[in-house]
Amino acid sequence: MIKKITGGVTAAKGFEAAGAEAGIKYQNRKDMALVYSQAPCVLAGTFTSNVVKAAPVMWDKRIVEEAPFGQAVIVNAGIANACTGEEGYSYCKKTAGKTAEVLGIPEDAVLVASTGVIGMQLPIEKIEAGVEALAGKKAGTLEAGTLAAEAIMTTDTISKQAAAQLTVGDVTVTIGGMSKGSGMIHPDMCTMLGFVTTDAVISKELLTKILKEDVKDTFNMISVDGDTSTNDTLLVMANGMAGNKEILEGTPEYQDFKEALHYVNASLARMMAGDGEGAKALLEVKVSGASDKEQARRLSRSVVSSSLVKAAVYGHDANWGRILCALGYSGASFDPEKVDVSFVSSAGQVQVCRNGMAAGYSEEEAGRILAEPEVTVLVDMHMGKEEATAWGCDLTYDYVSINADYRS
Amino acid sequence: MIKKITGGVTAAKGFEAAGAEAGIKYQNRKDMALVYSQAPCVLAGTFTSNVVKAAPVMWDKRIVEEAPFGQAVIVNAGIANACTGEEGYSYCKKTAGKTAEVLGIPEDAVLVASTGVIGMQLPIEKIEAGVEALAGKKAGTLEAGTLAAEAIMTTDTISKQAAAQLTVGDVTVTIGGMSKGSGMIHPDMCTMLGFVTTDAVISKELLTKILKEDVKDTFNMISVDGDTSTNDTLLVMANGMAGNKEILEGTPEYQDFKEALHYVNASLARMMAGDGEGAKALLEVKVSGASDKEQARRLSRSVVSSSLVKAAVYGHDANWGRILCALGYSGASFDPEKVDVSFVSSAGQVQVCRNGMAAGYSEEEAGRILAEPEVTVLVDMHMGKEEATAWGCDLTYDYVSINADYRS
Repeated sequence: MIKKITGGVTAAKGFEAAGAEAGIKYQNRKDMALVYSQAPCVLAGTFTSNVVKAAPVMWDKRIVEEAPFGQAVIVNAGIANACTGEEGYSYCKKTAGKTAEVLGIPEDAVLVASTGVIGMQLPIEKIEAGVEALAGKKAGTLEAGTLAAEAIMTTDTISKQAAAQLTVGDVTVTIGGMSKGSGMIHPDMCTMLGFVTTDAVISKELLTKILKEDVKDTFNMISVDGDTSTNDTLLVMANGMAGNKEILEGTPEYQDFKEALHYVNASLARMMAGDGEGAKALLEVKVSGASDKEQARRLSRSVVSSSLVKAAVYGHDANWGRILCALGYSGASFDPEKVDVSFVSSAGQVQVCRNGMAAGYSEEEAGRILAEPEVTVLVDMHMGKEEATAWGCDLTYDYVSINADYRS
Repeated sequence: MIKKITGGVTAAKGFEAAGAEAGIKYQNRKDMALVYSQAPCVLAGTFTSNVVKAAPVMWDKRIVEEAPFGQAVIVNAGIANACTGEEGYSYCKKTAGKTAEVLGIPEDAVLVASTGVIGMQLPIEKIEAGVEALAGKKAGTLEAGTLAAEAIMTTDTISKQAAAQLTVGDVTVTIGGMSKGSGMIHPDMCTMLGFVTTDAVISKELLTKILKEDVKDTFNMISVDGDTSTNDTLLVMANGMAGNKEILEGTPEYQDFKEALHYVNASLARMMAGDGEGAKALLEVKVSGASDKEQARRLSRSVVSSSLVKAAVYGHDANWGRILCALGYSGASFDPEKVDVSFVSSAGQVQVCRNGMAAGYSEEEAGRILAEPEVTVLVDMHMGKEEATAWGCDLTYDYVSINADYRS
């Protein structure tokens, strides 16, 4: 049993956060965030599979793999610190060094993350001043978590937080997180920026194992535009301050912890998809009846990534042929003449395709269902019992507008 | 030596064509085309790799693989005859039967092709009436070829034809073709609809071999929206009426024939990319210095397919970071710190990235270069000697508009 609660990175015991205006690229808005733990944390992380990795990704991979523990994360929005060579990497070290100095923790306990324009160098003096401001403001309140979640936004229109609790014996364990999107979203073994904190006592090995499994069904199942970013980073920090009996594999607490982490990750992922650049609607694609889990994921991701399906959802057009087409080029094998497709939203449910052909349905009714802000496509392959869900959004004029002049 | 000439499917000896208004879905425009050869033809073809294959694709695959020869192609625009089950396949047979009857040729010498909306059944009486009209109009003139090229258009804004000649001894051999796009374009082992005719004497085996090799560098190197259609079909018909000495592998004529076919295919592919749905600009991506050919193709296709790169071109924004990003998630391995990128158009050339980092350049100059209707991205991987070119287009408001209400 898990309990969903309000909150983000400061929901778990001993975590503090802050947001600050550093003037990196945006004016008159917060653009730097800090997440800090009062106690050293076990770390787990997943990072972009892109061959071109931003400097902070390289820094964090090293910390997660080699450092004994982590205690703080510094995030900036506006400039991605990608394609910046040795100079860019030196700024990661400088940022971590400054943070270590002001917080009194080791340099290699500091993680860094950047998001924004590729190919520009960070204004390191502004970053260092930002670190000082953040250290002076950090607090363990929910409000401080919200300020941090707002500070990491780029083209996001809403900040993204989620939290849940489980009990281990009579001890309450909390997991909370924040993330940002919202373009260049097509994560692969990773996501854009996501930060999850927990006060659970859990080993690094088990935390890593649970995380790598869970991202396959959460952050790796969303797509806004098919572009896998250079900066995708998901970090989980566990500081053990709940004081629970250590969570061990195969126990009921293990199941609850997995469920709570899945809830936080899936909530953040779903919010990122629904707030995709220019999006007017969240598009959810549930594939059932697949012969294996990986095939189910592949099929649902293919539909949610199709520009033509996304444009049809924007136009409230029940163009199910494009869904069959996207299933067909997914790389999965199946019998097209067994496929059923329905559309579901708060306005109702309509089956549009039966056995791979048009089902008798009212275009008007289907259009009404597609006009809602959250639309689900149900696909039944009739081949087996596996299922998967992917999340994306519609393709709109605003996506083009945002990305035709993002840098200016 | 080859010679580029004006013309399309009727450029080669003995080929006739026609276009007609059958009223299948569009009103007041041609929507059916015929290509006919006075003599039986050796056939070669490539078809969609999509698991969901339209009925005419299944019909044509059988004819190309099993029938002794082909002599006519009937094409309709408006309805794709995909996801239409046994009823849809029966209409292919009826269409071929009617064509055989009016032209006095065997039913299994008739190929059929459809393009348009998925999931609707063809109005077979209108198709049969269209076949009669086409048979009455067919002619071997260039104008007749143009009428056919116009009749197969859907969201295309221009008709697409190309032709070239070579000499075998003192005999002139001609190759000509037509094709249509312009959405759901991301061919895989195939293209949308393309029809190429030649009067060359050449064996089926050699024609097939040359075609399969050439599509890797032509039709399989274009992308409009990342969606691989259910109907992609490329047919080549060789009727031998030039009377040349048979073209054999390893001869100079073989090289010329390959070159001429490549010119026709690449011209049609390039035109399809530049006339992608809503496109304002042709985007050409040339990757050089790759370690192997397949890697060069993969890298160039990844850049030309990126929604973010395409939107940046639309906005005349020299956002080269997105190009590095798309190279990085292509699946090819390389050293990001060796990559150079330049933009070229009729307005000039500018290097924007050197060794994976920003090169000193003027954003204003780069913007002027990107404002032209044909833009080339030059990428040098500095790893080897292989190169490849891919073609696509910018991502515009009009793409969204066209596809949000394509069916209505």
